[in-house]
Amino acid sequence: MRIVRFYDDDGYLKKGVLEGVSGKRVRVLEGDIFSGFEITDKVVEAAGFTAPFEPVQVYAVGMNYRKHAEETGAELPERPEVFMKAVTSVIGSGESILLPKAGPDEVDYEGELAVVIGKAVKNVSRDEAMDAVAGYCCANDVSARDWQWKKQKGQWIRAKSFDTFCPLGPTLVTKDEISDPDNLRLETRLNGRTVQNSTTADMVFKVAEIVSDLSLSVTLTPGTVILTGTPEGVGFTRRPPLFLAPGDIVEVRIEGLGVLENPVEAE
Amino acid sequence: MRIVRFYDDDGYLKKGVLEGVSGKRVRVLEGDIFSGFEITDKVVEAAGFTAPFEPVQVYAVGMNYRKHAEETGAELPERPEVFMKAVTSVIGSGESILLPKAGPDEVDYEGELAVVIGKAVKNVSRDEAMDAVAGYCCANDVSARDWQWKKQKGQWIRAKSFDTFCPLGPTLVTKDEISDPDNLRLETRLNGRTVQNSTTADMVFKVAEIVSDLSLSVTLTPGTVILTGTPEGVGFTRRPPLFLAPGDIVEVRIEGLGVLENPVEAE
Repeated sequence: MRIVRFYDDDGYLKKGVLEGVSGKRVRVLEGDIFSGFEITDKVVEAAGFTAPFEPVQVYAVGMNYRKHAEETGAELPERPEVFMKAVTSVIGSGESILLPKAGPDEVDYEGELAVVIGKAVKNVSRDEAMDAVAGYCCANDVSARDWQWKKQKGQWIRAKSFDTFCPLGPTLVTKDEISDPDNLRLETRLNGRTVQNSTTADMVFKVAEIVSDLSLSVTLTPGTVILTGTPEGVGFTRRPPLFLAPGDIVEVRIEGLGVLENPVEAE
Repeated sequence: MRIVRFYDDDGYLKKGVLEGVSGKRVRVLEGDIFSGFEITDKVVEAAGFTAPFEPVQVYAVGMNYRKHAEETGAELPERPEVFMKAVTSVIGSGESILLPKAGPDEVDYEGELAVVIGKAVKNVSRDEAMDAVAGYCCANDVSARDWQWKKQKGQWIRAKSFDTFCPLGPTLVTKDEISDPDNLRLETRLNGRTVQNSTTADMVFKVAEIVSDLSLSVTLTPGTVILTGTPEGVGFTRRPPLFLAPGDIVEVRIEGLGVLENPVEAE
């Protein structure tokens, strides 16, 4: 099942289930996608989409791909290295990434698998961690490199929390549709050119390990999303570096999860 | 006005306004404290309190007191150095700080002034920043030092996001009651002994500067809380270091904002 949030012809934001794997035909869903919902008989044409759900908390794991750690010269972490992004930075597929007028001018893409928590858990074992997962989507952990390393002295959250810096989507694909989240092709394209081409099999910490470790003395509540890290090929490690510019189109494509596509504009 | 969330005799969580400046008599409030509410005629005795509101995002500023920067040997930042705490870490006055069984055993207090945003703003000037502020409360930015510097390689959010690591309260004091947030006595007591004794006048970045800077290309939404940093006297800089232990009582006292008091227990 592919859960979406969409705008109807009158501009109202509604929830639904995509008919098929793409397109605009949506079956309207009523209720809360995490605590209980009903799929209605009403099928409509979506006028537009936004992020498939409203995250209550956005966690992200740094340096979780072996080849990305190599390209940045970082050591592999011994346990998931976690940061956060502001919930206000979330947008959906089709919505624009805005290059902040506040000044960041080294804005980079990071294609990532996002894991969506559907059930509250705390101190959950690896074996039981997958019970807490509702599903998956594509994510782009957009990052302003100048703010990540120069304008802040070590904390990453500002660099990664500007409005529109967390595209999620295009849909929330429920867990039953993905047989192995730790073995999915992941590709990022910039203006049609492949810039990241990997597989989640290269992740240092697998999905169940991440959920279990992050739940250590921390309650993960329904609607929490965890970005699981990016593979090699990001813009700042290239010579010359490759940063986002107005007019660009960034796509994150993950096997079974569709295409998260965002144009880039100046704020 | 001192806004609270409290439990009634039947265990229901309700909103209210404290009658007077302390005690348990509460006038029931209906509606949303940020988007519009009505103060009713009903006055009840609270059976217990929790955090005065439910934050949608918790930002915190590091190294924002001159003498705290000195005691840690850090340079003063050129702009607010910002991190986040999980919304799931929030508790109220009287509720227990739990020392995580996950292992952190260097758990420290940090008494801080918290600023609560009441109106959505983005790219707001310093002059207009105070319009976005709804009020203030005391905060304790509880921090597991071993996770802050050893178990994570640089990102602070895990060290500061264990459940119960963000006491806020005892009430949300509306802005009209505080003539100058940048000049308030701030004291932290551990088991009755004063361990931090300062004033918000020692802050490097003042409240209006913090709100304005944080709103650069970032929407601050109603219910966002910003912890403004801690003064000197934290436990890890002492010789020998002073960490929290089961049975301790920590109090954060800020002029005009009451006493945020939390016992400490093992998880």
